[in-house]
Amino acid sequence: MNTAATQTLDEFLQHCQQRVNHRLGEQLNTDISSRTLKEAMEYACLGGGKRIRPVLVYASALAVGAELSSADNTAAAVELIHSYSLVHDDLPAMDDDDLRRGKPSVHKAFDEATAILVGDALQSLAFQLLSADSSVISAQKRLDMVQILSRAAGATGMVGGQSLDFEAVGTNLTLSQLEQMHKLKTGALISCAVLLGGMSNDQLGDAQVTALSDYASYIGLAFQVQDDILDEISDTITLGKPQGSDRKQNKPTYVTLLGLDAAKELASELSNKAIHALDDFPERADQLRKLAAYVVSRPH
Amino acid sequence: MNTAATQTLDEFLQHCQQRVNHRLGEQLNTDISSRTLKEAMEYACLGGGKRIRPVLVYASALAVGAELSSADNTAAAVELIHSYSLVHDDLPAMDDDDLRRGKPSVHKAFDEATAILVGDALQSLAFQLLSADSSVISAQKRLDMVQILSRAAGATGMVGGQSLDFEAVGTNLTLSQLEQMHKLKTGALISCAVLLGGMSNDQLGDAQVTALSDYASYIGLAFQVQDDILDEISDTITLGKPQGSDRKQNKPTYVTLLGLDAAKELASELSNKAIHALDDFPERADQLRKLAAYVVSRPH
Repeated sequence: MNTAATQTLDEFLQHCQQRVNHRLGEQLNTDISSRTLKEAMEYACLGGGKRIRPVLVYASALAVGAELSSADNTAAAVELIHSYSLVHDDLPAMDDDDLRRGKPSVHKAFDEATAILVGDALQSLAFQLLSADSSVISAQKRLDMVQILSRAAGATGMVGGQSLDFEAVGTNLTLSQLEQMHKLKTGALISCAVLLGGMSNDQLGDAQVTALSDYASYIGLAFQVQDDILDEISDTITLGKPQGSDRKQNKPTYVTLLGLDAAKELASELSNKAIHALDDFPERADQLRKLAAYVVSRPH
Repeated sequence: MNTAATQTLDEFLQHCQQRVNHRLGEQLNTDISSRTLKEAMEYACLGGGKRIRPVLVYASALAVGAELSSADNTAAAVELIHSYSLVHDDLPAMDDDDLRRGKPSVHKAFDEATAILVGDALQSLAFQLLSADSSVISAQKRLDMVQILSRAAGATGMVGGQSLDFEAVGTNLTLSQLEQMHKLKTGALISCAVLLGGMSNDQLGDAQVTALSDYASYIGLAFQVQDDILDEISDTITLGKPQGSDRKQNKPTYVTLLGLDAAKELASELSNKAIHALDDFPERADQLRKLAAYVVSRPH
């Protein structure tokens, strides 16, 4: 068995972070004529972050018996979509956040025009990586992966969810509407990470695809519920901290809809369902199982 | 011979515009949950425009003996990249243009956040279309097309050129620096349109690829020179018209560098070189030839 499958979760997280950071660094160290753009893209992509989506890609590749190296481009592509969305989300017209991971966000470190262009270029780069040559994954499969990533990223996925989120400001969402919004906004890309990782094995059977899909749906939602819990907890602890825009304060969350205890229960239930979805997978799916537990216990 | 090859250029332009508008309309009439986003995407994409890039895709497909129908997704994908770039270009932090094609630009008709999301979603949709199933073009070829479009759109292409353009404000560019900037900013996507159209024929030979590449480079540059000429002429005629931002006024152009007459000569020379590059192509490349002449004689 691949040694990565037996690492502790911490070791595995570190290993995956190094792999994806290396691939991202390589990709950005190419022929980009505009120095400002190149610097700003590096600033946006190489500044840390948990890399949870790439880790899911790798863990899923591992679960289906693929080499981690076959998932490097996929992991980097998914992270590039996530990174671009953060850069655009932080813009004044969007969430207006001046800080990201403790550093000035891209439009503060550079300027707004650069931040818009950086996001745009990172999205293109994601599809460039995903469509790059691979000796392991067939052309048809890689084309399917481009299709899946583009749907997860665009109007029927992440961007659609962001727009629903804007539309929801000041309105009263039902729990099912909140779920629909998050399924798109956060869930689509997280699900996509798991699915694409699984496609590193060209011969993946339908039952395995369904199991990974189920796992991905549960973990995607669990991730968002935990985010809402962390927001609530950290708001309570760090009194006096700027609470974000009015828009944000008006946003419904799992905690405001369910209460903190019920939200915690839901997160834990979703995590268990995710693990259960993998019942027919062998031991090499353990990192996916550990990640399901990690997602709802992470402190930030 | 395909009847499209013998149409007048006007007939052909109309025919292509109808084809691509139809395909774009179909694509936007899908399952997009956010009503605002869907409306704004339609507003951005279906509001007219010359559709010169899709026309180049179709003309190139025609030149290599492919059916126009095999190029519908490609034409729409290239136009989606162009459309997204216009939406983002018009933003206050970028060119700050309130009007586009005589109508309020997306951020005026909707708001800035929506305009940012619309651009992002249109880019994803481009890759979704290009990676969609096709009975005519092989998976490997379509994957190559995704690779080519992503390079043409991103930091090594269009977005890179836009960033160079920002960097050039208030500086004195040499002619070759100006050419490099435009090759990326406008040329990359125009070249890409011609190349991708040619790839509608799965069996395209190397010599034909080279010829189409040459044609594409010349016509891409000719397009920009003519743009600069039209800007100069329209500025002179419509006195009192708002001249755009200071940034724009400080921008070097072919006209400011070469003078109007030499710029006109250059445009005409580039157009002739483009036509000459197609010497070994049969009559069915006539629409490409006519387009090379059209690009430098168009009134707007």
